[in-house]
Order: sequence, then structure tokens, then C-alpha cells
Amino acid sequence: MTPHARKGRIICAGLGPGAQDLMSLRTARAIESARHIAYFRKKGRKGRARAIVEGMLPDEVTEHAMEYPVTTELPFDSDGYRLALANFYDDWAERLMSLTRTEDVVVLCEGDPFFYGSFMHLHLRLQDRATIQIIPGITGMSGCWTETGRPITWGDDVLAVLPGTLPLEDLSRRLADADAAVIMKIGRNLPRIRAALQAAGRLQDAWLCVEGTMQGQRIARLAEAPAEECPYFATVILHGNGRRPLAGGDE
Amino acid sequence: MTPHARKGRIICAGLGPGAQDLMSLRTARAIESARHIAYFRKKGRKGRARAIVEGMLPDEVTEHAMEYPVTTELPFDSDGYRLALANFYDDWAERLMSLTRTEDVVVLCEGDPFFYGSFMHLHLRLQDRATIQIIPGITGMSGCWTETGRPITWGDDVLAVLPGTLPLEDLSRRLADADAAVIMKIGRNLPRIRAALQAAGRLQDAWLCVEGTMQGQRIARLAEAPAEECPYFATVILHGNGRRPLAGGDE
Repeated sequence: MTPHARKGRIICAGLGPGAQDLMSLRTARAIESARHIAYFRKKGRKGRARAIVEGMLPDEVTEHAMEYPVTTELPFDSDGYRLALANFYDDWAERLMSLTRTEDVVVLCEGDPFFYGSFMHLHLRLQDRATIQIIPGITGMSGCWTETGRPITWGDDVLAVLPGTLPLEDLSRRLADADAAVIMKIGRNLPRIRAALQAAGRLQDAWLCVEGTMQGQRIARLAEAPAEECPYFATVILHGNGRRPLAGGDE
Repeated sequence: MTPHARKGRIICAGLGPGAQDLMSLRTARAIESARHIAYFRKKGRKGRARAIVEGMLPDEVTEHAMEYPVTTELPFDSDGYRLALANFYDDWAERLMSLTRTEDVVVLCEGDPFFYGSFMHLHLRLQDRATIQIIPGITGMSGCWTETGRPITWGDDVLAVLPGTLPLEDLSRRLADADAAVIMKIGRNLPRIRAALQAAGRLQDAWLCVEGTMQGQRIARLAEAPAEECPYFATVILHGNGRRPLAGGDE
């Protein structure tokens, strides 16, 4: 068989925010008929993506746990760790490619694959070589704002989605400039995020959502949330108040 | 029965971007077991939400088409039309309330209900009186960026979601300030949106997505898209290029 005579596709299946029944019908069907399933996880863990599909996999499926290289020896932001990570993605791109010679491979992806998704790193390496199908998912942030019981945006609200890694002044300026906001990548950035919200005059309106839509879900006003350790995958939510549409709007 | 002795809930079911199999399992189950289904539509049309669930409704379901008041007599942004619309929402809030005396009502909502959703107007009127369950959905914008075949955001990208109704300078400033952007509410705002993208130096990178994930889907570079009439529910997409995470990021 020549390298180009491939029969299989890479199907990246968005899983949604965490509750199993919030995945799409299309994703569920892909998983329930899969021969090969691949997912990222930390070494020694079950993996969040794998946990979401518990009980759905066909008996005869082959699982491929893509375990991130261990970071204890190398700082996260060192060149050494970046290289180890690049090698890890290169290696898995090759392994998935060989599987597609004969069969489809379903890659599980939390949330929506093209929205800050970890699949991205495989996509860059595979996009010109394999047939890739992406199935969108409900984003983690949608799951979180739904659980707060209030719309995130209505009318002509402007929404900003901001990584919590931004410097204090930049974060604060952007928070003051938007009607609604979502901050992602929380973890040890939380004190700076809190300071930025305070500087923007919006700390009292902010909500912190941890494990949104999942069993361990915790939602609280950020001002009242304990200052203790916060997971990286938590979400801060600032609801819009419905900016009035301007004249000239349609429909 | 006293007014508070209600047995039913209002279940607002997010339908996702348009393809039927992109709704969640939870939404599908709510629809397939519904006794009452309500959805907005324009008079004389089938309705976009209703079209998405074609073939899924149980035989014994009762359909409630909530038809927007006709606007031919009144300008869209007039006080008269606003009043007609407010009466329309008041009226339907009451009608849905009476149904919940005995049974659940499933309200269909395109996309994600709490993200610029039309359910909002009923939610405001019902939130303190009825038991409301919201089922999130894949947003229309997720459907669109997935169909462009490229991630909308990765790394530390900042995403701005902007209504196309914003004034030219405001729109252009926000487009220049974000890494990735989505513009909604297109329609007759398209010439101003095009000018704002041009002023921000980003017209060449913008994509226009019409009827994303649906049968009539059209995706093109905005610079090459015909200047002809564009639907209001089209979406403009500007992909992020993966802002490099700063030192101090987690995981």
C-alpha cells in the first residue's frame, strides 16, 4: 500500500463541557462506532476526556492514551520542556497516521476542538497529510454560563474571551472595555485576575465556575470565593447587561 | 390548583448551529419525549428552529408556534414596534406559564440559549415564576469556525465577539485590539463591517460564513465574497494566530 492510499480519517470529536449528555449526537455516534479512540491525559491519571465517555465505548475498541511528557525535571516554560512536548506531538501524529492506513481514529477533545483545543497541536502536524473531520462541541464556557442561570450576552453586548495569563493592566483594560467577559486559564493566575477585575470596577459582578456541568461543580461569586488553590480549567464569568441595539440594526 | 402548585417546567433546549446531529443528547432526549414544543418564527415561515427538529417530534406532541408581530406597518426601531414586541413576549410568557400547571414545555432555541438567544425575553418574564431548565448548545459561531477548517483560538489568543451594529470606529478599534474575532448580526451592516476590517488592516484575513453547518452553507473570504445582500444571521470569522503564552502561565 502506498503512503497515500489511506482508507481512514482522523475524527476529532468535541465532547462538550463535561456532562456526558452534553456531547452532540454526531460525536456520540462517532464514539459508539469507533475502532480506535485516542485521548490526551497526564501520566497516572484516567484523563478528563476519557472520563466523559465512560460506558460509551464499544467492547472491541482499541484505546490510545496519549500521555503528556512528565514535567518534574523541567520547568514548564523552559526550552527543554517545549522540545519534549514537540517530540511528543510529532510522535503521536505519526502513530495516528499509521492507524489511518486502514481505519478511522476518533480523537476525543474536551469542549470545542477549535476553541483553545489541545487537538490543535496534532492538527498542525496532520492537516496536510490526513483526512481530518472536526466535530464541534459545546464550549466549557457555555456550560459555565448556563449553570449561572443568566444569559452571558444579549442585545448588542460585546463579549471578550481573555486568557488569565494576560498582564494585569492589559487584562483590566480589556475587562473595562467589554460588556461581557469570560476569563480562562485561571489556576495560579487568580490573584492577578482578581486585581484586574477590581481595577476595572467589576469584581462584585464576577462569578467563578469550577468543574462546570460536572459532578464536582462549584459556582460562587468570585469576591466571596475562597482564596485557596483554584484549578487551571476554572472559568470566570462576567455577564453582559444587554447593550441596547443602535438604530440601523437589522431584523 | 393554586398558582404555585406547578408540576411542569420550562425546558429551553439549545439546538446548536443548524445541523440536526449537532444538538446535544440532552436536547434530543427532551425533544423526543416532549408533550409541548414552542418555537419562535416569522409569520408565514416554517421557522428555523422548527426546521432543525424535523422528523424528531413524537406523534402526540402539541406545537406552539410563537409568531413575531408583523413589522410592515411599523419601523423596527420605533416605540410602537417595541411595544408590540413587549406585548407579544408578555402574552407568550403567560401562555407557557399556564401549560406548566400540568406539563413540561420544551422551548426550542437555535445555538446556545444564553448566548444572544431569543429565549432571553421569555426568561426575563418567567425566571421568578417558573422552574426553568436551560440546555446549552453549540453556538452558531462554533459551527462556522469549525467549517473554515482552522482553529479560531489557541495559545493565549484574545477573542472578541462583536455585533455588526457597532459604529465603524468602535468596531475597527476592537478588531485591531483582538487576536481573533467573530462578528455577528451582519445583514445590511456588511459594508460598514468591511470598512472596519479594512481600517483595522484585517480584511484579507476575514471569512464570511452563511448558513453554517446547514444545507445551504457558503464560506468564502470576505474580500472575495459578493457584495450582494447578506443574511442577518451570517457570521464573520477572524482566526487567531496563537499568541505565545507568557511566562507565569500554568500547566
